[in-house]
Amino acid sequence: KTLLLLPGDGIGPEVTAVARRVAGRLIAQGLALQVEDALFGGAAIDAEGAPISDETIARAKAADAVLMGAVGGPAWVDQPFDNRPEAGLLKLRAAMNVYANLRPARCFAALADASSLKRIFVEGLDIMFVRELTGGVYFGEPRGIETLENGERRGVNTHVYTSSEIRRVARAAFELARTRKNEVVSAEKGNVMEAGLLWREEVQALRDAEYPDIKLSHMLADNMAMQLVKNPRQFDLILTDNLFGDILSDQAAMLTGSLGMLPSAAIGDAGKPGLYEPIHGSAPDIAGRGVANPSAAILSFAMALRYSLGRADLADRVEAAVSAALDAGARTPDLGGTMSTAAMGDAVLAKLG
Amino acid sequence: KTLLLLPGDGIGPEVTAVARRVAGRLIAQGLALQVEDALFGGAAIDAEGAPISDETIARAKAADAVLMGAVGGPAWVDQPFDNRPEAGLLKLRAAMNVYANLRPARCFAALADASSLKRIFVEGLDIMFVRELTGGVYFGEPRGIETLENGERRGVNTHVYTSSEIRRVARAAFELARTRKNEVVSAEKGNVMEAGLLWREEVQALRDAEYPDIKLSHMLADNMAMQLVKNPRQFDLILTDNLFGDILSDQAAMLTGSLGMLPSAAIGDAGKPGLYEPIHGSAPDIAGRGVANPSAAILSFAMALRYSLGRADLADRVEAAVSAALDAGARTPDLGGTMSTAAMGDAVLAKLG
Ligand SMILES: CC(C)[C@H](C(=O)O)[C@@H](O)C(=O)O
Ligand SMILES: CC(C)[C@H](C(=O)O)[C@@H](O)C(=O)O
Repeated sequence: KTLLLLPGDGIGPEVTAVARRVAGRLIAQGLALQVEDALFGGAAIDAEGAPISDETIARAKAADAVLMGAVGGPAWVDQPFDNRPEAGLLKLRAAMNVYANLRPARCFAALADASSLKRIFVEGLDIMFVRELTGGVYFGEPRGIETLENGERRGVNTHVYTSSEIRRVARAAFELARTRKNEVVSAEKGNVMEAGLLWREEVQALRDAEYPDIKLSHMLADNMAMQLVKNPRQFDLILTDNLFGDILSDQAAMLTGSLGMLPSAAIGDAGKPGLYEPIHGSAPDIAGRGVANPSAAILSFAMALRYSLGRADLADRVEAAVSAALDAGARTPDLGGTMSTAAMGDAVLAKLG
Repeated sequence: KTLLLLPGDGIGPEVTAVARRVAGRLIAQGLALQVEDALFGGAAIDAEGAPISDETIARAKAADAVLMGAVGGPAWVDQPFDNRPEAGLLKLRAAMNVYANLRPARCFAALADASSLKRIFVEGLDIMFVRELTGGVYFGEPRGIETLENGERRGVNTHVYTSSEIRRVARAAFELARTRKNEVVSAEKGNVMEAGLLWREEVQALRDAEYPDIKLSHMLADNMAMQLVKNPRQFDLILTDNLFGDILSDQAAMLTGSLGMLPSAAIGDAGKPGLYEPIHGSAPDIAGRGVANPSAAILSFAMALRYSLGRADLADRVEAAVSAALDAGARTPDLGGTMSTAAMGDAVLAKLG
């Protein structure tokens, strides 16, 4: 099996270096995995002129899993819209057809002391977002900025979903719900957007036809933003489109008080490679200082083991090692501690055995 | 001057009845205002077959201000998409051309005890949202659900803004910022949506050309959802498009712990009537029980006095009366008290003098 590593920009190379060490330890213990890497994002723009090359896309599609760090940063904000690091990321998601983005917003019990640090920490929070990742307004055509005859400019993006795009991500959500609490809350703005109404109808129809054991409810996205403040523990699994998922999952992530701990997985059809990434960004403010928390990258690698590499057993071990390191007091600065990225990695490796 | 009252559905008639009493008191004291009313929302569907009649729209446009309660409820969810209470509201907003939606998210000092009620209460929070209200994905064409040749359905909405639509609402935000802290944070997803990039560029260009005294910054909408959790007090005035404003302003509203206190104003060009409404909805769960908090409706009327009726002096008096009633301990159930809607109204009227 092959893991393609895309370190990317900012703290991306720092945190993926630690994930690579964790992979190396498992390989030394017998895991049959080949780890490769490629340039991505701003690093690829600087070296090759574009945020992702066709060759890298081909290698990503041929790999069993892709683990990325983060992309973007101030150095590339003046790139043309289609040549930004973010454009490379969207191109990769689309090419890999990873339509279901799993984003856990989970509080780690060991970090309950976070409240004393004046960080938000909703004890016991454990929400899994399933966000549609390859459709909606991120990808719809027509799109662009045009200049009108009267000299004004007009910016257009198209929010579009077909029944099958909705159903395949809803199916991923229902299947995952069966491994959790058999509950799904789906978000849209079907009161003002027809595409949201279609979303609601298709999700409900799939549930009625094939997942009668799942308790499904629908919530308007604005109300969900309120409920995530008022009582976030009411949610177990949240299903959203691409744009609402971007916003609501970030809102929820912040409730854990430790963005640096949160991994994500983007998966597609069975047997196809998944794309794994920490949900934190490239964090230009701390890049190069060796203080970023590598946990999200390590836990993203654990998700890769679970969803793409057929090794849920090793995923469990890696996750347990991270928890044990936290229990033992390992803390990077984002968690109120003083450990470096490498030292945090050492602490996890020590628990991994 | 004329105020058109649109009580609407659910708790709408209950809370606007109190606002009407407040208006009546000021009229008795010499305010030259004629208060009229009309059916709106589900109530209009039941009586006339549509959520808003052409006659009501004409009367709204001819009035100096329109004060509405709330629209919608379970009785009308099976109406065709274009004949829902919400559709009536969007039609009214468009017809009145009220493109700038002012939504304060402000904590009342007197409610600091809210924390003991386990409600979220960010002491000192005072954010003003300026949300674009008559454009974007709420109104863009093409839109709708079509059935494709292969039997699939396809739902489409169009997110679109022109330079002038962006600039007029940005102008409203900058003008308002001059009465506050001369600071504006504008939200978009210009990293993935061209219409968001246009938004950012036009807002910046207007600032550079005409409002050099305003400190303007730009924030991605997903990051703003995080920052509103992490450190909401960093914001004074937030400028957003229609959809992001819907979600982010609701998120922020919940941080005040008292949705029942929050008014809103939707205004357009100078001299045109504004549309005022509580930000709470029709609250079907408590409708008819006489326990809804009328404060948001009263404060919406105060905003009408300020922005449409040329009586900032009376707006100040009404707002002071609400604060004084809170200071004196007046509390409806949403604030942890036991007062009825009418009793809360009495408490405010007593302070109004
Ligand atoms: C970097 C950006 C393109 C991306 C998105 O909007 O999807 C990010 O915010 C995310 O959520 O992964
Ligand atoms: C009722 C609905 C159409 C409306 C909106 O989405 O604008 C509401 O949520 C609001 O924010 O006023």
